[in-house]
Amino acid sequence: MTLLRRFLPGWLAAYPRQKLGADLAAGLIVTVLVIPQSLAYALLAGLPPQMGLYVSIFPVIAYALLGSSMVQAVGPVAITAIMTYAVLSPLAAPGSAEYILLAAVLSLFSGLMLLACGVLRLGFLSQLLSRPVISGFISGSAVLIIISQMKYLLGIAPQGRSSAELVVDLLGKLADSHGPTVLIGLLALAALAFARHGLGGLLGRLGLGAPRAAFIGRLMPLVVVLFGTLAVVWLDLDRTRGVAVVGAVVAGIPGFEFFLPGYESIKLLIVPAFVMTLIGMVQGITMAQALAIKRRERVDANAELVGLGAANVVAAFYGGMPVGGGLSRSAINVAAGAQTPLASLVSALAMIGVLAGAAHWFERLPLAVLAASIMMAAWSMIDLQALRQAWAYDRADAMALLGTAGGVLLLGLETGIGLGIVLSMATLLYRVSTPHIAVVGRLPGSEHFRNVERYAVETIPGVLFVRIDERLFFGNLGAVEMRINQELERIGEARDLVLVMSAVNLMDTTAVEVFAELNQDLAERGIRLHLAEVRGPVQDRLQRSALWSSLSGQVFLSANAAFEQLRQPPA
Amino acid sequence: MTLLRRFLPGWLAAYPRQKLGADLAAGLIVTVLVIPQSLAYALLAGLPPQMGLYVSIFPVIAYALLGSSMVQAVGPVAITAIMTYAVLSPLAAPGSAEYILLAAVLSLFSGLMLLACGVLRLGFLSQLLSRPVISGFISGSAVLIIISQMKYLLGIAPQGRSSAELVVDLLGKLADSHGPTVLIGLLALAALAFARHGLGGLLGRLGLGAPRAAFIGRLMPLVVVLFGTLAVVWLDLDRTRGVAVVGAVVAGIPGFEFFLPGYESIKLLIVPAFVMTLIGMVQGITMAQALAIKRRERVDANAELVGLGAANVVAAFYGGMPVGGGLSRSAINVAAGAQTPLASLVSALAMIGVLAGAAHWFERLPLAVLAASIMMAAWSMIDLQALRQAWAYDRADAMALLGTAGGVLLLGLETGIGLGIVLSMATLLYRVSTPHIAVVGRLPGSEHFRNVERYAVETIPGVLFVRIDERLFFGNLGAVEMRINQELERIGEARDLVLVMSAVNLMDTTAVEVFAELNQDLAERGIRLHLAEVRGPVQDRLQRSALWSSLSGQVFLSANAAFEQLRQPPA
Repeated sequence: MTLLRRFLPGWLAAYPRQKLGADLAAGLIVTVLVIPQSLAYALLAGLPPQMGLYVSIFPVIAYALLGSSMVQAVGPVAITAIMTYAVLSPLAAPGSAEYILLAAVLSLFSGLMLLACGVLRLGFLSQLLSRPVISGFISGSAVLIIISQMKYLLGIAPQGRSSAELVVDLLGKLADSHGPTVLIGLLALAALAFARHGLGGLLGRLGLGAPRAAFIGRLMPLVVVLFGTLAVVWLDLDRTRGVAVVGAVVAGIPGFEFFLPGYESIKLLIVPAFVMTLIGMVQGITMAQALAIKRRERVDANAELVGLGAANVVAAFYGGMPVGGGLSRSAINVAAGAQTPLASLVSALAMIGVLAGAAHWFERLPLAVLAASIMMAAWSMIDLQALRQAWAYDRADAMALLGTAGGVLLLGLETGIGLGIVLSMATLLYRVSTPHIAVVGRLPGSEHFRNVERYAVETIPGVLFVRIDERLFFGNLGAVEMRINQELERIGEARDLVLVMSAVNLMDTTAVEVFAELNQDLAERGIRLHLAEVRGPVQDRLQRSALWSSLSGQVFLSANAAFEQLRQPPA
Repeated sequence: MTLLRRFLPGWLAAYPRQKLGADLAAGLIVTVLVIPQSLAYALLAGLPPQMGLYVSIFPVIAYALLGSSMVQAVGPVAITAIMTYAVLSPLAAPGSAEYILLAAVLSLFSGLMLLACGVLRLGFLSQLLSRPVISGFISGSAVLIIISQMKYLLGIAPQGRSSAELVVDLLGKLADSHGPTVLIGLLALAALAFARHGLGGLLGRLGLGAPRAAFIGRLMPLVVVLFGTLAVVWLDLDRTRGVAVVGAVVAGIPGFEFFLPGYESIKLLIVPAFVMTLIGMVQGITMAQALAIKRRERVDANAELVGLGAANVVAAFYGGMPVGGGLSRSAINVAAGAQTPLASLVSALAMIGVLAGAAHWFERLPLAVLAASIMMAAWSMIDLQALRQAWAYDRADAMALLGTAGGVLLLGLETGIGLGIVLSMATLLYRVSTPHIAVVGRLPGSEHFRNVERYAVETIPGVLFVRIDERLFFGNLGAVEMRINQELERIGEARDLVLVMSAVNLMDTTAVEVFAELNQDLAERGIRLHLAEVRGPVQDRLQRSALWSSLSGQVFLSANAAFEQLRQPPA
């Protein structure tokens, strides 16, 4: 028992009895409420809808046992689903056996990468993306999602390889819309929009508290699904009117399916999996932290990555669809009163029951209703306020946001996020590429060196003392080199250049190479290069470099030692 | 005449007569010497060999008139050629009309991007890549180039979509090698290797000076081409033995062909064009600078980009193959004694003569000879010393080098360079993600604040003064937040947090959002957030942000003002 306890996660080993009731109730409520979105996101991913239910079982258990958030709920999520569709639909026909296999491989890769990032403590990589870029990516994806669902809502099949082509083709085919499908879809959309925007106020005026009103709002997707299905069944819309429905759902728990991905699939999917990992990381960590702050709890970003990674690896073999930390799922979980991951365990077990006993209920659920719920969720992901704020605060960040969103819409998801990374990095580089550098001289009667522009200091004709106030790396060397050359030109006949390195705590490989070239270049111009006040760790490394052995001048312990020696006229 | 002079580039408007002879001679020599490599790189790019000659005319003129380097020579280069092949070969059959059109579009896009970067002064973007990453990219590409030429050297046709598959297939087909082709190829390879590694020493022992010996070495490719062609002609190897040769060369100057790229080609080629732009930028600027330093001249990186961009735009319409600043071309130019871009103008005009009068001479040039010269050039691009040095100096940089080279070889050129950018950026982020932060207190009897760990300073119970010593941006906020929370925990019952911002000269949009969240989080925990010594430009922006209006505490002009007010017990 003690042994067992050591292998249990902390929350389970010391589970407080009094939370049991809340967790049990929350788990059961969540099971029922997440059914519509699980089906919908699987559809969005181009997979059979029931796969969304499959991955609501074992991946959820894996995350509950390994993740670090108390209330984050994992499962199929919108961004991951649209990325799956974007990556796989050019490679195989959505819904085909090959497509399903590729989805499992994608889930496996991104799971393994998340696990690796967690174990290697690479959580900081999620900082590769600035918030405006993330916001642009999500808003752009949301528009893509809405476009992708029009076909189900209208009952037509637009064709096109890009979103622009799809929209054009769709507009041309509007007249072919399937009447009953459109009717069902628009009614569902109206009901969901009302639930989100009108219902709360109405219930409030009826005297309900805000949390309860919000909870009832969250019930609406289920109500819509229910009515949609009943309408199809009563009026036999699928058989007599051709309304598209989910169709045969394979009931029962999915079996464990083991497979080894081939070289070809590794090559095709490794980059998309990396992009999904990055986005999953950002989304998972951000949400877990936001939830934890509200509850005065802590999350460990790297443990979080291990949990998400394990969930995706398990998803690859038991269900075959990538999963993530879901905003609406987690919100439902919190609203239902979940206290610990036990609620997720309960919901996973209950989902097995649903699949075993009630899967056939979804067979006649109209796709237009699922599409409406996806579109509603996507609509709420479009964040114009972020754009407005960024525009007011920092134009460069606003441009990065627009560039990423535009890239996603016009060039596709992967290219868009790639563009976003490049834009984030370009702004970063632009900002760090102008390091602080000062020409210094000696304060009379002291051993202190100060900026020549601000103090009356002593200088030596033909000798330039330059203090570099920042670490030297590939991104700022251009500016450093240019500044040094400007200063050398300014003083005219230079014979010695002393770099005061007291504030340089890093020189990367590029910096050493550039300085070695500078050293050679200066030597050819008859100027010696000296270093002073090199920090210990920097010096340890420099001694292993070509710069050290080829240095035309000396290494001085202090700027003052250099000053004393170089003030002597050259022999 | 004065008017005309105003539109001429500086070097031409004030052309010194005494350089005319040197430039004329150099131009004529260069024309002859670059013929083998122009044919070879076009072949490498999957294009008809004569296209390499076409783009040695008008793009060269465009660069001569607009570029800023005195001696850099543009034309077909190895890296650009292999990238063209890697990008286009999955889209169309090499050598087909569609392929040729796509190559022109690729050249147009990368030319426009280079122009835009030059005009918008975005030359700093070339710093997106660290040197180890560039070195890894070039070495990896060189291996790809060698693999791609094996088929011409051996006269067999290996199949495979990845370089690994190609190599495996090639090894399996070794027995089918075409004897005469292999013989010609290996002889050419041996001659070129001797020219590079043995000839210099031999000529030195015969009493020749080093520069003259090097120049004779550079003649060797031409000699090899000559003998290879003569061998084919004398022995009729192409007709009787099936040795593959260049074939019909369309003589004469290429006509101007105008076209507008379609949406589909924009979508397919925009990202590859961006990658080519980036690499072209790095290569072009680096080389121009290296050449300028040797000659005590200056190059303007942005003017250089304009020149390269114009050359590529012209190449798109007159020849249809991307061009770049070529290392070996420029070396030939310098060795031949070029003084100004007039040498390039002369060589462009002479190339028209070659195409008009001598194009048919190349028809029976064996492809194996061109492949040998490509492989020799690629071999010299593999830089193991860079790896050795990086490994000794900085393991992280060495891993970035290996990762990029491995990515290029296993996942392809674009993915490889993408991986390289991500690796560069990850090391950069890792290095800037730990900003310097100090908990400070007041030096007794003064208004100065110092680090509590190093000075005996006054502090106020429940009040934490934290000084942030770096700009705040998306990459280091995680560390800042964590540190603040650690310090708050350490002092226990905190009621006020004062951030001393004297050294913060930038807060990006992400920073403002994270601090707004921190402010709210702290408020819920009963801790007020104050700012002190906010710099003017930072404050101007902050006033437009949500953080400013929602700040739970105050904004103090100085840390001391905050200290004086907060030392009073709360009311």
